[in-house]
Amino acid sequence: MLQSFVSGRWTSADDAGIPLTDASTGVEVARYSTEGLDYAAAVDYARLVGGPALRALTFPERASCLKQLGKLLMAGKDEFYPLSSATGATRRDSAVDIDGGIGTLLSYAGKAARELPNDTIYLDGSTESIGRAGTFVGQHIYSSRLGVAVQINAFNFPVWGMLEKLAPAFLAGVPTIVKPAHQTAYLTEQLVRRIIESGLLPEGALQLACANPHGLLDELDENDLVAFTGSAATAARLRVHPNLVESGVRFNAEADSLNCSILGPDTTPGTPEFELYIKQLVTEMTVKAGQKCTAIRRALVPQNLVADVVDAATARLSAVVVGHPEAEGVTMGALASIAQRDEVLRALKFLTDAATLVSGDPDNFSVRGADADRGAFLPPLLLRVDDNSVAAPHDVEAFGPVSTVIGYHDLDEAVRLAVRGRGSLVGSVVTHDPGIARRLVLDLAPYHGRILVLDRDDAKESTGHGSPLPTLVHGGPGRAGGGEELGGIRGVLHHMQRSAVQASPDMLTAITGRWTKGAARDTDDVHPFRKHLEELRIGDTVVGGPRTVTLDDISHFAEFTGDTFYAHTDPVAAAGNPLFGGIVAHGYLVVSLAAGLFVEPNPGPVLANFGVDGLRFLTPVKAGDALTVTLTVKQLTPRLSADYGEVRWDAVVTNQDDAPVATYDVLTLVAKLPAKSGGR
Amino acid sequence: MLQSFVSGRWTSADDAGIPLTDASTGVEVARYSTEGLDYAAAVDYARLVGGPALRALTFPERASCLKQLGKLLMAGKDEFYPLSSATGATRRDSAVDIDGGIGTLLSYAGKAARELPNDTIYLDGSTESIGRAGTFVGQHIYSSRLGVAVQINAFNFPVWGMLEKLAPAFLAGVPTIVKPAHQTAYLTEQLVRRIIESGLLPEGALQLACANPHGLLDELDENDLVAFTGSAATAARLRVHPNLVESGVRFNAEADSLNCSILGPDTTPGTPEFELYIKQLVTEMTVKAGQKCTAIRRALVPQNLVADVVDAATARLSAVVVGHPEAEGVTMGALASIAQRDEVLRALKFLTDAATLVSGDPDNFSVRGADADRGAFLPPLLLRVDDNSVAAPHDVEAFGPVSTVIGYHDLDEAVRLAVRGRGSLVGSVVTHDPGIARRLVLDLAPYHGRILVLDRDDAKESTGHGSPLPTLVHGGPGRAGGGEELGGIRGVLHHMQRSAVQASPDMLTAITGRWTKGAARDTDDVHPFRKHLEELRIGDTVVGGPRTVTLDDISHFAEFTGDTFYAHTDPVAAAGNPLFGGIVAHGYLVVSLAAGLFVEPNPGPVLANFGVDGLRFLTPVKAGDALTVTLTVKQLTPRLSADYGEVRWDAVVTNQDDAPVATYDVLTLVAKLPAKSGGR
Repeated sequence: MLQSFVSGRWTSADDAGIPLTDASTGVEVARYSTEGLDYAAAVDYARLVGGPALRALTFPERASCLKQLGKLLMAGKDEFYPLSSATGATRRDSAVDIDGGIGTLLSYAGKAARELPNDTIYLDGSTESIGRAGTFVGQHIYSSRLGVAVQINAFNFPVWGMLEKLAPAFLAGVPTIVKPAHQTAYLTEQLVRRIIESGLLPEGALQLACANPHGLLDELDENDLVAFTGSAATAARLRVHPNLVESGVRFNAEADSLNCSILGPDTTPGTPEFELYIKQLVTEMTVKAGQKCTAIRRALVPQNLVADVVDAATARLSAVVVGHPEAEGVTMGALASIAQRDEVLRALKFLTDAATLVSGDPDNFSVRGADADRGAFLPPLLLRVDDNSVAAPHDVEAFGPVSTVIGYHDLDEAVRLAVRGRGSLVGSVVTHDPGIARRLVLDLAPYHGRILVLDRDDAKESTGHGSPLPTLVHGGPGRAGGGEELGGIRGVLHHMQRSAVQASPDMLTAITGRWTKGAARDTDDVHPFRKHLEELRIGDTVVGGPRTVTLDDISHFAEFTGDTFYAHTDPVAAAGNPLFGGIVAHGYLVVSLAAGLFVEPNPGPVLANFGVDGLRFLTPVKAGDALTVTLTVKQLTPRLSADYGEVRWDAVVTNQDDAPVATYDVLTLVAKLPAKSGGR
Repeated sequence: MLQSFVSGRWTSADDAGIPLTDASTGVEVARYSTEGLDYAAAVDYARLVGGPALRALTFPERASCLKQLGKLLMAGKDEFYPLSSATGATRRDSAVDIDGGIGTLLSYAGKAARELPNDTIYLDGSTESIGRAGTFVGQHIYSSRLGVAVQINAFNFPVWGMLEKLAPAFLAGVPTIVKPAHQTAYLTEQLVRRIIESGLLPEGALQLACANPHGLLDELDENDLVAFTGSAATAARLRVHPNLVESGVRFNAEADSLNCSILGPDTTPGTPEFELYIKQLVTEMTVKAGQKCTAIRRALVPQNLVADVVDAATARLSAVVVGHPEAEGVTMGALASIAQRDEVLRALKFLTDAATLVSGDPDNFSVRGADADRGAFLPPLLLRVDDNSVAAPHDVEAFGPVSTVIGYHDLDEAVRLAVRGRGSLVGSVVTHDPGIARRLVLDLAPYHGRILVLDRDDAKESTGHGSPLPTLVHGGPGRAGGGEELGGIRGVLHHMQRSAVQASPDMLTAITGRWTKGAARDTDDVHPFRKHLEELRIGDTVVGGPRTVTLDDISHFAEFTGDTFYAHTDPVAAAGNPLFGGIVAHGYLVVSLAAGLFVEPNPGPVLANFGVDGLRFLTPVKAGDALTVTLTVKQLTPRLSADYGEVRWDAVVTNQDDAPVATYDVLTLVAKLPAKSGGR
């Protein structure tokens, strides 16, 4: 009997449960309880224990937890393969789920470490000035939602499905309750067991409900989120759950969709793209036995190439060996369960009313290494429509190794057919013609969460039509559920609340921990370049100058650097420049002189200037102008695992009339205080 | 009888309709049909005429339309004031609606012109590298949704409510169908009439349904959006509309909420903040007679200041003159209708079960310039709870001039009370203590779409608790509807679909119109600085160098600029720098020399370098290193109303080992081709 991990402990149910069987052999693997859990307690535990513990950590600390967890899981990943095999997955399928899932966790850990601030809130966009005098400004911030993220997962990716939702929720400071699909829950349970044993996550950050979910959604409120992956029908049902609607629970759905792959009209047999198209189509039909919400269900190809595509795909499909995932030479395993297989067969009936089965016979195929009658096996099944106006291929999803080839006559028709899917997670376009690619991608984009353009140039590195990536959004409009997951930091922010904060610059600085234009500057005696990272304070400022820029300076700089642009060297031509009307100093001269004015030359905590952001030249500098620079500590970002951190400085160069000449951010690396030596 | 504008023409219904009466006098102003419209035709018209016409325009062209429209409406705004007065609005109230609405339109026009690209798609975030070799990359794009935006508006802001939704939808390329609330639809109808007459919007971009909306939502599909403003109860009902759920229509709700305003414990009577708090509370109670979804419903104040707050507010409220909005001296008008007034009185009953009415008597108050029995008048009504654990003030909204004062004992309790509102559009914190502000803002943020911190520093420019701004998000979690509008470009993007595009750099360049790292560069004979804006092509490249950097160069630059940082000048100290291990060239020297290598010095189309973005120094440059720079046209942005445009260049400086030394974007202004002279 699978156990649940709720309220800090593993619990077993008393009922007999329902048997979960090996997809290939029908042998019982585990049992899944049909009883519920004390969900009120579980939600409370997440809210009162998990949430506060998580939110006590900064983003970099959360990222560090995930990194350690990902490394541990990756080191022990082999342990998960046998259970994955029981789900019908081949070794390749298992890698997508297991390695892909852990890889997603690690990708999030890395991205968060690089892109999230050393804080618990995230600043969105730049400050919005509201009042003219600058005493009233706005800033959008993201803060952690104070509830729990409930995952309701599909059976097809028991590892990836859990980890791809856990990672962004965790980074956002939101604890998770996982409700796996029962069919393959034994693998998720083992994974959760290893995670809990590791002790790497704060208590309460992760709970697992291997149980009847009835009542779980009734416990949620406006602080909580539900992230659902599964069928469009179930998504529609959950979306109108009375408590979710009444309590304003955030609901995200990722539903399987009737994804298309379009073969460009430029790609005739013999071109690399034609081969790539066929290969990808067959891959998408057979990986996970086609049980992927991103699989290609509709192959849209030029009408005159339908026969070629069918022939080439059939030839390739004939090499597919169906059977027990661990049997030698097997390239496609079983579906997750007999029930799942039967559902595919039911959908196939609808499809064959409208289309012709051109490859594969569900009633007659060979199975290697397993008893065909006891396992949930199907062969890859390719269909072809003769009349491309039929509805079924655009409406009916067979969630297995099933695709339909549909001919189109021109690009307009290709687009019309594609959008009959009414919103998809992903589409692909296989072409080497940039014009065709642009046309199709821009026309398809409103209906797709992701679009892959495959050609000879990217084929080698392409991750394929069916693979969501941690850095790119996953989800799609309409039938695909209208939701969005992943997408790097975007996926983290989906678990947070965006709020506009309006305040004075001083208040905004205090609230956000980032210096805001107009806030107080502290020009005390010590040059801030003499301070270590821990000694620096937001607002610490050095003012340098004035330095007068002479015509000689400008001429000399032009000669020295080779930047003899006429506006710096030729008084007559410069007078004709509509923006300057005379000789001006180089922008690069201005910032170079500014550095000379703010720098503290002696060895000290400042190690390097590693960059400049958002440099804008606002007022031309003419000979005789006197420059002053004001440099203020804007943001401090210690690096967890280094003896230095990043300091972002606000820089403003003004002239003798106090007009701003240049504004920019200077980025430096600054050492932390030396560790105390010695001791006892 | 109010008319509708659908399918390109004004139509009148045949029924008697229901009378809409002047809020102050009860006199009939107009009639509103109870019949429906041919919504299938209206939606088709939007999809087939309005959408394509709008999307044929670039973002700057759409912005230009809005700007002209805004100017026209602002010039003629006086015409709208008499009808606004009929809704019960004083001149001040009308300005919030009319001037505020047109101002929002103009703000959007300006922001779009500055921040949106010269294109019809919007690139979100930077390119994500996927493959190590750089042949496969990802980029998120936003493209226009191909449907219609249906506005279902509240009665309280017949102008602003329509324009704040129209502007972002229009900029996004999405046509709008407006369904105004019937009570004040006559003002919206007049506004739409002026807009249509102006001929400034493309045909089909705007339709108006002054009719029974039954059946409208049934016509929508996955391309469409519904933006609802109104009560939480109606939002919950619409959200589960079968077709919206089944067809995956995007639904956004902005529901009135039980917003709180917290007086900080530091703000005793006599401080500026105490006065500001009282003044703001009274303003929010009386503007629009309290009929604002953002009004302050709950005044949370330190327990020991409850009496002071009540006294001060009562004193100020006693000066409020209720009456006909056009009568001399009236400072608060009527509610929108008798029905609305009665609803407030019903809610008041619930509130007075839990709280004491301390200011105002709904059964006994004077009305200036109107018959109290015929108009929908109420006095401002302030309540006070004696037991702050009661539920009603946190649950029951009286949508009129009604607020409740609630005492708290410490900041923890203030937060607990605030969040009993279960999600609000806005909250405010009145304090001059940065620590209290930070604490309250961060604790309240997860429950709020907007938070205002008011103190003596920003009071003069503060736009107030109740005012949504075009540049800041409007909407809130939970009870407030869980939606989001406005927020500058964010509001535009809510009408678009985000898609991840995966392709080779060349394909991505073709699709997005922006040069992508790794794509082809065209180094033809003509230096790109010799080309006018229209002659430049994405990918045009100039390569300059190599130039060897000598120790003399570094020493000289240090001396000349004054940047004598030890890493450039002191070999011994520089050797101790952990990142450099010896003398390095200044980063500013590197980019200055690079400019010397890529510049074309003679007068030509390039007018100025106005900025640099994302400069990063990647490899230290030592004496003897030879630098090469490669400058490539990345993005072209003509300005509609100028004879030049912006060119963004990708710049890479490499050393003799081809290692990247510095990467950045150079921003220049480049002239358009001179207009052809002469002609007839």
